[in-house]
Amino acid sequence: MGPEICIKTMKFLHALQSVKIIPVGNFKILCKAARLFEYSSPLVKLSSIEEARDFLSNNEVLNIELEDEIKTGKVSSESGRHTYNILKTCSTLCLQGKTTGIVTCPINKEALQLAGYNGEGHTEILKNLAYVPWVETVFCIEKLKIFFLSRHVSLQKAISLITKDTVLSALIKMDNCMKDMGYQEPRLGLPGLNPHCGDGGLFGKEEIEELIPAVMEARKKGINVKGPVGADSIYHLGIQGEFDAILSLYHDQGHIASKTYNFYKTVTITLGLPYIRTSVDHGTGYDIAWKGVANPESLIRATSIAMDLIEKNEGFSPCCHTEKKW
Amino acid sequence: MGPEICIKTMKFLHALQSVKIIPVGNFKILCKAARLFEYSSPLVKLSSIEEARDFLSNNEVLNIELEDEIKTGKVSSESGRHTYNILKTCSTLCLQGKTTGIVTCPINKEALQLAGYNGEGHTEILKNLAYVPWVETVFCIEKLKIFFLSRHVSLQKAISLITKDTVLSALIKMDNCMKDMGYQEPRLGLPGLNPHCGDGGLFGKEEIEELIPAVMEARKKGINVKGPVGADSIYHLGIQGEFDAILSLYHDQGHIASKTYNFYKTVTITLGLPYIRTSVDHGTGYDIAWKGVANPESLIRATSIAMDLIEKNEGFSPCCHTEKKW
Repeated sequence: MGPEICIKTMKFLHALQSVKIIPVGNFKILCKAARLFEYSSPLVKLSSIEEARDFLSNNEVLNIELEDEIKTGKVSSESGRHTYNILKTCSTLCLQGKTTGIVTCPINKEALQLAGYNGEGHTEILKNLAYVPWVETVFCIEKLKIFFLSRHVSLQKAISLITKDTVLSALIKMDNCMKDMGYQEPRLGLPGLNPHCGDGGLFGKEEIEELIPAVMEARKKGINVKGPVGADSIYHLGIQGEFDAILSLYHDQGHIASKTYNFYKTVTITLGLPYIRTSVDHGTGYDIAWKGVANPESLIRATSIAMDLIEKNEGFSPCCHTEKKW
Repeated sequence: MGPEICIKTMKFLHALQSVKIIPVGNFKILCKAARLFEYSSPLVKLSSIEEARDFLSNNEVLNIELEDEIKTGKVSSESGRHTYNILKTCSTLCLQGKTTGIVTCPINKEALQLAGYNGEGHTEILKNLAYVPWVETVFCIEKLKIFFLSRHVSLQKAISLITKDTVLSALIKMDNCMKDMGYQEPRLGLPGLNPHCGDGGLFGKEEIEELIPAVMEARKKGINVKGPVGADSIYHLGIQGEFDAILSLYHDQGHIASKTYNFYKTVTITLGLPYIRTSVDHGTGYDIAWKGVANPESLIRATSIAMDLIEKNEGFSPCCHTEKKW
C-alpha cells in the first residue's frame, strides 16, 4: 500500500507546505497511484535531488529505477531489493545534508530477507547506513511520546529486565531525549507492572522493590517523573495531556495502549540518527494493495510530526550526539 | 461522585424508558444532586419498592436512611456502612424478584473495610449475599466483551497460569456465557502473550506450547475461536467488530486496551448472579465530589447495557445456572 498512502498523503498535505516533501520511489508506480486517486497535477520525474526546483508544489518525485519487475501484493526478493535501494538513497541524501529527514512507509521484512538484507527492518538498516552507535524508537500518539524499556523479548524476560537500575537509566535517557526534542521540563510518567501497581505488594513486588526506588532516585536528580501509576490509566492520562512521555515497561504495554486508542494515529520517531526520521507503525497490507482503500492517516501524521520536528529543530536532529550522554 | 452521576444518568435516560429505573440511596443526598443539575421534576421519596407507582417518570427514589452523618469527599466507616446498606437492599430486592437488575456506581473499598466489610468490593459482596458459587466479571467496550484468564495476581504469576488447560477451560466458559447472552455462534479471539505472538518462538514459547494447542482443541469442540493474534492489534480488531469476545491473558492486557480506548466507555457485566448486574468501571473521585463535573458516561452506558440485557433475556439473568456447566 506504500505508493497509495504516499500519494494520498501528498494530496492531503498539498496546502500545508512549510517543508518541501519529495516522494522517493519508482516513478511509474507512483504515477499509477496518482492516477488511481486523480492526483491534481502530473508528477514530475527527478533523476537526482539536484533537479528539484519547485518548492511550492508537491508533484516532484525522486525516481528509483526498478532493477527487476515487481509483482504487486507479493513478497519477493525483487521488491525487497527495491525497498532497500529506496532506503539507501534516502539515507545517503540525509547523510550528505541534501535532505533533512525521512518519513518511511511500511516495508516487508520477509522481502528484505529474501533480498539478502537480514536487518531487523527499516530502523536497523538506517542505523547501519549511518554508522551510529544507538537508535531509539519512540511511539507518538496524539502529543504523548512512549519510550520502551524493552522490546522484542518474551514477556517473561521483559519482567526480569525491570530493575531499579534499568528503569533509572531509561528515565534519564528519556529526560535527555525529551529535552533534545524541545521540552524544557518534560513531565514523565512511569506505569506499574502489576494490576493496580501490585496494591501495596499484595500481588507483585516490582513496584516496591524496583519502580518506586527508581522514581525516587530520578526525582533526586531533578527529573520530573511521577509513578508508578496503574498501567490501565496512565496511558489514558498521558493522551489527555497529563504527561509528555511514558516509559512502557514491556513491548505490549505501550503498543496495546496506543494501537487500541487509535490504530492509525500511532507513528514512530527514531532518535539517534543524524537526521529526523518518522515512520508509520502499520504493515504493508498486501491483501488490500491497489484497491484504493488503504488508510493514509498514519503516514499523514508521521509526515506532519517530521515537519514539526524539522521546523522546531531547524533541521537539526534531536538526540544525535557524537558522544552518548547516558 | 455517585449521587451526581446517578442524577445525570436519570436526566439523560429520561426519554428512553423501556425499563423502570429507580435510584437507591439517601433521599436527601440525591435531592442535593438533583438541585445541582436542575433536575426537571421534584424527586419522590419511596420508603419501600411497593410504593413505586409511576412507570413513566424517572423521579421516584428508594430512600435508604443514613445511620450516621456522612462527610462528603471523605473515606469513613459511616459512608462504608451506608454503601453496604444500599447494596444489601438492592440485592434483596433482586433476590426476592421485585427488581430484575442492579447497576452500581463506584464504591470505596477502604470505606467498606472501615465499616467492617472485608469483601473485595461490590462483586464479592453481591456474590456472598446471593449465595452463588461463582461470578465472572466481563468488560464491555463498544460491542466487544472482554473476559479475563486471571485478575488480581502479579504479572509473573499470571504468566504461570497460562496453560493449554486453563486457556481451553476459559474458552469453553466464554463460549457458554456468550451463548447465554444471546450470541448464537460467538466469534472469540485469543491474544498472544509475547510481542508479535513470540514471532514463531523467537521471543517466548507460550504461543506454541500453550495457546495454539488450546485454540486447536477448542475448535475441535466446535468453538469459533481465532488466535493467537498479536495483543496490540486484536483489541482494535475486536472493537471494530471482528470479534464478539476476547480472552485477556492477564489483568492489564484487557484493562489497558479498553481504558485507553475510552476510559469512560468501559463498563462491567457480572455473570453468575441470579439477576442482571452491570457497573461503572471507575473510582469514586472523592477529589471532584460535588463540583458538578463528574462524567456520567460510564454509568449511562452501564445502565443502557443492563436495560438491553433485561429486554433480551426477559428479565432472566444470563449465565446463572443451578449447576455449573463447565
